[in-house]
Amino acid sequence: MHVSEIAAFLSANFIGEDREIRGVSTLDDAGPSDLSFLANPHYTEKALHTRAGAIITKGRLSCDNTSQIITDNPYLAFARVVRLFVPEKEFKPGVSDAAFIHPDAVIDESATIFPFVYVGKNARIGDKCVIFPHCYIGEDVVVSSETVIYPGVVVYDGCEIGKRCIIHSGVIIGSDGFGFSWDGKRHLKVPQVGKVVIENDVEIGSNCTIDRAALAETRIGTDVKMDNLVQIGHNVVVGEHTIIVSQTGIAGSAKIGKNVILAGQCGVGGHIKVGDHSIAGARAGIAKDVKPGMVISGYPAMEHKRWLRVQNVYKNLPEILKRLNDLEKRMDKIDKH
Amino acid sequence: MHVSEIAAFLSANFIGEDREIRGVSTLDDAGPSDLSFLANPHYTEKALHTRAGAIITKGRLSCDNTSQIITDNPYLAFARVVRLFVPEKEFKPGVSDAAFIHPDAVIDESATIFPFVYVGKNARIGDKCVIFPHCYIGEDVVVSSETVIYPGVVVYDGCEIGKRCIIHSGVIIGSDGFGFSWDGKRHLKVPQVGKVVIENDVEIGSNCTIDRAALAETRIGTDVKMDNLVQIGHNVVVGEHTIIVSQTGIAGSAKIGKNVILAGQCGVGGHIKVGDHSIAGARAGIAKDVKPGMVISGYPAMEHKRWLRVQNVYKNLPEILKRLNDLEKRMDKIDKH
Amino acid sequence: MHVSEIAAFLSANFIGEDREIRGVSTLDDAGPSDLSFLANPHYTEKALHTRAGAIITKGRLSCDNTSQIITDNPYLAFARVVRLFVPEKEFKPGVSDAAFIHPDAVIDESATIFPFVYVGKNARIGDKCVIFPHCYIGEDVVVSSETVIYPGVVVYDGCEIGKRCIIHSGVIIGSDGFGFSWDGKRHLKVPQVGKVVIENDVEIGSNCTIDRAALAETRIGTDVKMDNLVQIGHNVVVGEHTIIVSQTGIAGSAKIGKNVILAGQCGVGGHIKVGDHSIAGARAGIAKDVKPGMVISGYPAMEHKRWLRVQNVYKNLPEILKRLNDLEKRMDKIDKH
Repeated sequence: MHVSEIAAFLSANFIGEDREIRGVSTLDDAGPSDLSFLANPHYTEKALHTRAGAIITKGRLSCDNTSQIITDNPYLAFARVVRLFVPEKEFKPGVSDAAFIHPDAVIDESATIFPFVYVGKNARIGDKCVIFPHCYIGEDVVVSSETVIYPGVVVYDGCEIGKRCIIHSGVIIGSDGFGFSWDGKRHLKVPQVGKVVIENDVEIGSNCTIDRAALAETRIGTDVKMDNLVQIGHNVVVGEHTIIVSQTGIAGSAKIGKNVILAGQCGVGGHIKVGDHSIAGARAGIAKDVKPGMVISGYPAMEHKRWLRVQNVYKNLPEILKRLNDLEKRMDKIDKH
Repeated sequence: MHVSEIAAFLSANFIGEDREIRGVSTLDDAGPSDLSFLANPHYTEKALHTRAGAIITKGRLSCDNTSQIITDNPYLAFARVVRLFVPEKEFKPGVSDAAFIHPDAVIDESATIFPFVYVGKNARIGDKCVIFPHCYIGEDVVVSSETVIYPGVVVYDGCEIGKRCIIHSGVIIGSDGFGFSWDGKRHLKVPQVGKVVIENDVEIGSNCTIDRAALAETRIGTDVKMDNLVQIGHNVVVGEHTIIVSQTGIAGSAKIGKNVILAGQCGVGGHIKVGDHSIAGARAGIAKDVKPGMVISGYPAMEHKRWLRVQNVYKNLPEILKRLNDLEKRMDKIDKH
Repeated sequence: MHVSEIAAFLSANFIGEDREIRGVSTLDDAGPSDLSFLANPHYTEKALHTRAGAIITKGRLSCDNTSQIITDNPYLAFARVVRLFVPEKEFKPGVSDAAFIHPDAVIDESATIFPFVYVGKNARIGDKCVIFPHCYIGEDVVVSSETVIYPGVVVYDGCEIGKRCIIHSGVIIGSDGFGFSWDGKRHLKVPQVGKVVIENDVEIGSNCTIDRAALAETRIGTDVKMDNLVQIGHNVVVGEHTIIVSQTGIAGSAKIGKNVILAGQCGVGGHIKVGDHSIAGARAGIAKDVKPGMVISGYPAMEHKRWLRVQNVYKNLPEILKRLNDLEKRMDKIDKH
């Protein structure tokens, strides 16, 4: 594929030689037949010295041997072209003999079921789904079309997964919510009889845990993207397009709005509401409701700009203390006069 | 089942119509034949507008069409009645042909072993246990009666699980503790030759990890309830009835007392002792021993009430700095005179 | 084995009776035929009262009935002797009939493949490897000699694992990195077409997640030791001999040097460089590059010694505020005069 064709595919312009491109690579590793991209200005220096045959970039670079495809959002453009060079893997439809399929399960004939998959009673697997080895699909589970479930995923009874979802390995969907009530002698289990609903186009990272609701639904909205090792408590609702980065935990009954970003290692308390389009910085600890559009950080979470100012003082606390000591001494001197 | 019967079952009084109840539901979703409950005063407004046929509540509510069952602890009462409407699933005893059972393993004939379960040499599975697909039960493991192990759980060799435990999917019990010693060139592994003992009535959430002891036992006491993604280091002892909320990590050789609560995302340092009946707020970082009965928060953890006061000043640090600046200026003025 | 023989094995001296030792145990549990050790001075009191037949210790102890093997590094010495008493388990080579092996996979005849293992097309399993049940070894994966993979591990297509590695249960290697670009309507997935390379002598704790690179490699260096529930983002490089303690998360494209220690629950931001031989205390949040050899703590991370001073003031903030209030009042009084 030539640089001109890639540029045309992206409705973008290019400068430099119209050479042939055969692969995609990083700025460091790319050779003369590779395409690379510059999205993070942090790496501009690398871009100036890349051996890539072509680069997708926002601003023109002064590099001679690399053709440049100019576009407003190089990362988005790159996302679009990768599959031109590294096609997605295709799977042969059919159910492995080494899978266990309950006779009352319904599996679309275009789906692929790998060995050692367990599909329970009345479960339904939609068209073009791919279920990798060692997945457990419980009774009455619904997996809708074109969803891919990687190895070792567990979907407890009665949960639902939408279309075109990608569920990475080790994800547990529908385990019991954490509900106990002390009866005077021991913790009595509060039966968790709800379910989990994952809407369409959701991607869930490895080893995430999403608990079933106590009574109704834990719900993950359309186009939510969840990184690895995220914890979602029972009854939680996550709005569409929300991004949840790795190791974040959301306690029971919290409501996360749409288009929210929760950065890595955040925590959201039980019953908290996080408004639409809000952004929480890494490790924010959210113990109160968050208004739509707010940008917050810290624990307890506060407006991000305030947090930056607070942190600036915080790290200088020893000097602040010294100044306070000095002031007290000066004051004592004055008082003595 | 009628409201009067439910009230009688709970030894509670009720007010309103003695209508028939056929299910349980949330305040939002409940209809005229559903029972709901109000435990968190946060939701009183919802309770006043619920369409539920009956509600379990502590204080009388002014809602006309909903019968009220009055009890001191509505959450506990609700926990008790759920199974009247949603009976627990029952499992057919027997070992699946698609399971792998070592000939020297002993499996009670009332146990249920699903396909793709692996049970190692000399392992013993007690009566009425249910072992879901893709579980690995190592050599010499003991699983005592009525314990349920959900799909994809791994129990390494020699570990023991008590009676009536519930182990959720993806839990790893008995992996090697994290012990290495630098030998001048590389990290030499300290062999971890102890085991894990889980006592009776323990529930462990999805994807928790509990390491085996270096030499003796990592022990999880009776009636401990552990949420998802909790990490328990080697040699840790957790006392009975203790609650450990999601994403908390307990480092090696820590001793957690009984009836302790560790809220979400806490951390406990190695060799630390946390006293009985103490409570750690979300994300407490416990680097020193905690006395019995203490309520702590923050990192490093301090008395909770102090932490609240500290946080109150902390978030106003920019203003504090300004006041300090002002004071210095005023002082300079005075000194100049 | 006699105390004299153990001492000779360690090139160490001993004092006391040359009695026979048949096992290893903790200071608390050891009996007259057990060997124990004292590495942490915290436990000196226990050592003085141990019933162990022999103890490995740095300084001489005044205990009469326990022989003492004197060595500079008792923990290292203990690591060396444990296997004299608790030999490592051996595995019968061969592939289980209940495993699924793609006809184009290559498995060394000295390897052990347990039931319910899945090995994909063109995967290669080296000599003396042990692959426990329910592992998924994807297409083109390479597992080099003497590596042990515990139950329920997933290695996505194309990833590579070095020699003598130990991969604990539930580890996910090579799931997609977290890369999305908003296209105006939804998050477009950035295809993750790189891989993960695990070098030699790496140990990875249970339920860790290591994402594949977007384009090139996520790389875990030789002799890296990783505790449980650690998250490694795409493109991350971890240098050799680095220690990563439980629940730490490393965001995409970060570069961790060699011989680094990241204690429990740390976080490292995307694209950050952490220099060789640096040490991050528990829960450090690393948002800026760290110079080689630095010791850091806190969030945002700062020099550890400074952090200790900052925390000392921080926990006294209520008193600081009071002193500031007092000063202001005194100043007001002066100004009024």
